[in-house]
Amino acid sequence: MDFSSFITSLVTSFLIFLVLIIIFSWLSRKPGNRVVYYPNRILRGVDDGGAGSRNPFAWVSEALGSTERDVIEASGIDTAVYFVFLSTVLGILALSGIALLPVLLPVAATDDNIKTANSTNINGTFTDFDKLSMGNIVEKSSRLWAFLIATYWVSIVTYYLLWKAYKHVSALRENALMSPEVRPEQFAILVRDIPLPTDGQTRKEQVDSYFKAIYPDSFYRSLIVTDNKEVNKIWEELEGYRKKLVRAETIYAESNKTGNAGGRKPTHKTGFLGLIGEKVDSIEFYNEKINELLPKLEAERKVTLKDKQQPSAIVFFTNRVAAAAASQSLHAPLVDTWTVGCAPEPRQLIWTNLPIKFFERQVRQYIIYILVALTIVFYMIPIGFISAFTTLANLKKILPFMKTVINQPEVRTVLGAYLPQIALIVFLAMLPKLLLFLSKTEGIPSQSHIERAAAGKYFYFTVLNVFIGVTVGGTLFQTFKQIEKKPSSIVTLLATSLPGNATFFLTYVALKFFVGYGLELSRIVPLIIFHLKKKYLCKTEAEVKDAWFPGDLGYATRVPGDMLIVTIVLCYSVIAPMIIPFGVVYFGLGWLILRNQALKVYVPAYESYGRMWPHMHTRILAALILYQVTMLGYFGVKKFFYAPFLIPAVILSFIFGYVCSKKFYRFFSSASLEVASHELKETPQLERIFLSYIPPSLSSETEEYEDALSQVSRTGSLA
Amino acid sequence: MDFSSFITSLVTSFLIFLVLIIIFSWLSRKPGNRVVYYPNRILRGVDDGGAGSRNPFAWVSEALGSTERDVIEASGIDTAVYFVFLSTVLGILALSGIALLPVLLPVAATDDNIKTANSTNINGTFTDFDKLSMGNIVEKSSRLWAFLIATYWVSIVTYYLLWKAYKHVSALRENALMSPEVRPEQFAILVRDIPLPTDGQTRKEQVDSYFKAIYPDSFYRSLIVTDNKEVNKIWEELEGYRKKLVRAETIYAESNKTGNAGGRKPTHKTGFLGLIGEKVDSIEFYNEKINELLPKLEAERKVTLKDKQQPSAIVFFTNRVAAAAASQSLHAPLVDTWTVGCAPEPRQLIWTNLPIKFFERQVRQYIIYILVALTIVFYMIPIGFISAFTTLANLKKILPFMKTVINQPEVRTVLGAYLPQIALIVFLAMLPKLLLFLSKTEGIPSQSHIERAAAGKYFYFTVLNVFIGVTVGGTLFQTFKQIEKKPSSIVTLLATSLPGNATFFLTYVALKFFVGYGLELSRIVPLIIFHLKKKYLCKTEAEVKDAWFPGDLGYATRVPGDMLIVTIVLCYSVIAPMIIPFGVVYFGLGWLILRNQALKVYVPAYESYGRMWPHMHTRILAALILYQVTMLGYFGVKKFFYAPFLIPAVILSFIFGYVCSKKFYRFFSSASLEVASHELKETPQLERIFLSYIPPSLSSETEEYEDALSQVSRTGSLA
Repeated sequence: MDFSSFITSLVTSFLIFLVLIIIFSWLSRKPGNRVVYYPNRILRGVDDGGAGSRNPFAWVSEALGSTERDVIEASGIDTAVYFVFLSTVLGILALSGIALLPVLLPVAATDDNIKTANSTNINGTFTDFDKLSMGNIVEKSSRLWAFLIATYWVSIVTYYLLWKAYKHVSALRENALMSPEVRPEQFAILVRDIPLPTDGQTRKEQVDSYFKAIYPDSFYRSLIVTDNKEVNKIWEELEGYRKKLVRAETIYAESNKTGNAGGRKPTHKTGFLGLIGEKVDSIEFYNEKINELLPKLEAERKVTLKDKQQPSAIVFFTNRVAAAAASQSLHAPLVDTWTVGCAPEPRQLIWTNLPIKFFERQVRQYIIYILVALTIVFYMIPIGFISAFTTLANLKKILPFMKTVINQPEVRTVLGAYLPQIALIVFLAMLPKLLLFLSKTEGIPSQSHIERAAAGKYFYFTVLNVFIGVTVGGTLFQTFKQIEKKPSSIVTLLATSLPGNATFFLTYVALKFFVGYGLELSRIVPLIIFHLKKKYLCKTEAEVKDAWFPGDLGYATRVPGDMLIVTIVLCYSVIAPMIIPFGVVYFGLGWLILRNQALKVYVPAYESYGRMWPHMHTRILAALILYQVTMLGYFGVKKFFYAPFLIPAVILSFIFGYVCSKKFYRFFSSASLEVASHELKETPQLERIFLSYIPPSLSSETEEYEDALSQVSRTGSLA
Repeated sequence: MDFSSFITSLVTSFLIFLVLIIIFSWLSRKPGNRVVYYPNRILRGVDDGGAGSRNPFAWVSEALGSTERDVIEASGIDTAVYFVFLSTVLGILALSGIALLPVLLPVAATDDNIKTANSTNINGTFTDFDKLSMGNIVEKSSRLWAFLIATYWVSIVTYYLLWKAYKHVSALRENALMSPEVRPEQFAILVRDIPLPTDGQTRKEQVDSYFKAIYPDSFYRSLIVTDNKEVNKIWEELEGYRKKLVRAETIYAESNKTGNAGGRKPTHKTGFLGLIGEKVDSIEFYNEKINELLPKLEAERKVTLKDKQQPSAIVFFTNRVAAAAASQSLHAPLVDTWTVGCAPEPRQLIWTNLPIKFFERQVRQYIIYILVALTIVFYMIPIGFISAFTTLANLKKILPFMKTVINQPEVRTVLGAYLPQIALIVFLAMLPKLLLFLSKTEGIPSQSHIERAAAGKYFYFTVLNVFIGVTVGGTLFQTFKQIEKKPSSIVTLLATSLPGNATFFLTYVALKFFVGYGLELSRIVPLIIFHLKKKYLCKTEAEVKDAWFPGDLGYATRVPGDMLIVTIVLCYSVIAPMIIPFGVVYFGLGWLILRNQALKVYVPAYESYGRMWPHMHTRILAALILYQVTMLGYFGVKKFFYAPFLIPAVILSFIFGYVCSKKFYRFFSSASLEVASHELKETPQLERIFLSYIPPSLSSETEEYEDALSQVSRTGSLA
């Protein structure tokens, strides 16, 4: 990519961004779009209907003026932690930039390695830009000292801000967990791997007697996990008919209003997709179906509660300390029986994963790890091809008929600027679903944990494939034999390839923040989908709400995406300091726009009280270590005699990581008793806590049925 | 070493053993020696004074007839677990031997590699013995299949017996911990890293209020750890004078009886070693000193209790479940404050280690690891020299004046047989104290843990230095450059060196069991020391008791010693199956003789309820893996095409280890609540439990003083 491509790319990106911002300012003020731009506020009941938002840039000052407490109120701790992450990275990059740019750019620009060494370089396509990078420093030059010290500066800034952030997040979590609000998950523990009950004992009895013996005072009751597949199916069917019934009734009511007297009763065909079969009166038909299914559901419920009990349970305690202590203690001497853990929130519990056995979970985990490793390796091949194909020169060779199109200078410039990056982004968009599915298959009991696990896999994926893959990609296959001979040469290889790819990544980052955040803020896609749905599909209130319901921030893909940027910017920070401002803009703009989205748009799907943080922390640190090792290699390539002076930095990073994880980590995986012992606002309604864990398909609708639920346990104990 | 040396060594060892057995039979029946041969029984008050022991071999049938329950009663769970270890290894070797000896010996003996390959071998000193080993198999021979299958057989036998043993030990621990006896350590937890108290709060108050808030119902009271250095010094001085006073009084009483009326009052000089200085009346002098020290001790006690409180405490609970749960739960959100753990028994608590801070402990640990690694490396050098020097040929060269002595055939044979082994044993005897000291410096809070840690270090030491060092030793320096070039060649090197060293290790094992166990059973050294002390030094009852007090089994050195034998025998089991019977005799004889010692002699210094087992388990498994890897290398040396068939065995060993540690290990580091919830025989006397943790130097002797101890806390809370 040459310099003009880069500028074109930057300018077009910026223009797209401007257009999107204008669209946002215009559309977000229309009352009909409030559900798309303010759903979080509407759902919280704090929407003022757009009273004070005259200024089209009011959102900026609102976002800047919002406090952490606002974010927590609007979107919970997890979102607040995400902003800690954004501002930490922003801080790292800003502080690095302040020191590095004024020092390193002049040092690099006044040297002249590129002219002399140009012909020997692998890529051979240096631009004006590259003169500002470390590539322009002559080998063995004492100017390299500046770069070495800069590497230390970046590392120290990172340690300092990460340490502060970890403390801050720890305090956030602490405050949230000691809050006087009653939260069901703080009164419950998750019990798995319950052994077979002895003869004549039901599971319920077994669990109750086991925990009653250990906690005579603080045990409240237990909820045995059941196999809800059947009952869920019936319930979903029933709910489907109910929705359809409401829809048919709405249509009928509307036709009553608008059409001739008596209206036209809605009808539909019962066959395939409503296209064939008998034509029936919809309202009658659905009512019939519902009446048919209700007793079936009731019966299945009873069968499920009685006969489909699984070797897993949720156990409730009368106070938070007892539950917190119980969730961390070994219960049975054999560690693979009666395993306990913190109970996740009711809404994020994955019921189907609960009965999976201890060692099966382990085996699944390792199999998934192997699968992910394979995925990473095999995705590398197409990505390697992409980075090879998507240079224009190659494209011309492969697709000669494109030549005439490509040879037009404008087309060539635009394509040259975007093609590789777009290909990369599209390619990466296909992955998250797979990783979420794989993580769920591991047997993880909660949604937030699944997303964390998927985010981890995605991070390794992006760093290994995108960053290292793209960087080394072009030269990898040529030098494969060399690596085979000497595995440590991968660092050298990475180091040599880095400078040549600086502009690629600059464009990538710019594309991501201008276009990505422009789309994010303007919400064009959800807006269009919403209006289409509203116009052609939605009839009832509930359907309209479904159409605009915003979902959550999507940590599973958002965080690794940001992480990739962190890794890229960190690794280039000293080699090509010009990347730092781009990184600063990415995280600055991201902070601003997502602040707006967090306050007004997204609705969190779960709350894990910041358990994402240790992962973010570790990965920023991993990026730092990768950066340090790469720099070590690059100083080696530059034949700098004092390159080993960087080794202490790598060791320091490991020590820092070790100390942080020792000091802070356990609080993110276990509940602290000190925190749990804080007083509650009110005496907890234990029955309500218990009921909150019963899935909708099993929960009672009538008072009588509530009895039956307990009844099953009681009759069970007589069987 | 040639074959005749080996036979000589074996015969002399056996003769020594016979002599020792006869000495034992003779001496142990003398009533005056009962305190040496039956101290455990005497201390437990079940000694019958030798009523039924007419038969000199009664001890054999007694040992064989004793049950595990007898061992637990006499010496506790730790000793019982040691016997599980001995019998497991015995079982592994016996089962291996039964299958391997009848199959492999004929297979090896009928081949004839040695004749053909003799000249090319490194050692070049093959004996008749070596014909029975795998060294006699021709390269690429299909006879090697038998050895491959044998390797699998040994592995499978090991897995099976280890699994059974782990289950058994787990049950032993479970039974011991759920016993209805009140054990102080089950009601207490150890709290370390207490943060600085807020202004106007004493430590005592701080700890009490902290735990009262978390455990309003189950917290009993706390005991703040104090810096007892000063008070211990005074107390020891006082105790010393008390002992001397008793001694002086005894001497005086005796002189009254035997001598002229009125007796002669004992006197001594107050100066250096009692040799110079003023001559004083001992009884008066000691009384004076005691009266002088008593108020000083009292004052120092008060100061210690009030002003020398450390950031560590022992916290007592009213029931076992509460203590067990508390010991495993995270208390403060910052993991390096208020760290908790199981309380060790009062008698094995290392008070001086308790106040060491969290990260200081980590740093100390890593420093110690590095020191131990250095020790291992630097001990390797002298051991290498030993194995080079202690061949007779070398000795003659180095010490030419010895030539005449060495040239006498009897001397030469005996020296040739023993010299290397004795040098090795002496060398190894110097190490344990150092390792115990290093382990203590890590900041470990209990004696049993220190011994486990030292045993671990000792194990690595012996395996790396003795086994690998001696085996590879001779050839190591010559081939050092080769290893540098290709590190994996160490396995090949080990594999090639093994057959040549088989007889060395055979002799080593035989020496250890005949002479080692002979000395163990006959207790010649303790007996002589006891009689000397009794005759010339001891005057009072207490002094006599001190003289015969037997101490414990000494796991810290005994277990690694056995482990070395396990490693040696396992590694040679297929290469030179003749070693198996020696291993069987070692562990069989060991079981028998130590059973006798455990039932009648040794008194355990602590009880850790079998926490040694997971270490033993892991190390047997490590020996197995070393064996499998060595075999893999040796099959490679034999150019056996199917050698990679052994790789699954190595993987299987790792999986087995993983599953075992996942399934069983946590119960050995944490208390199981299910176990702790079993009912007690009686309501625990909480005050007595509390008092049992007060060290003798701080514990009160008068009722009043007992008040003062609480007083300090109470007045403290007013300060």
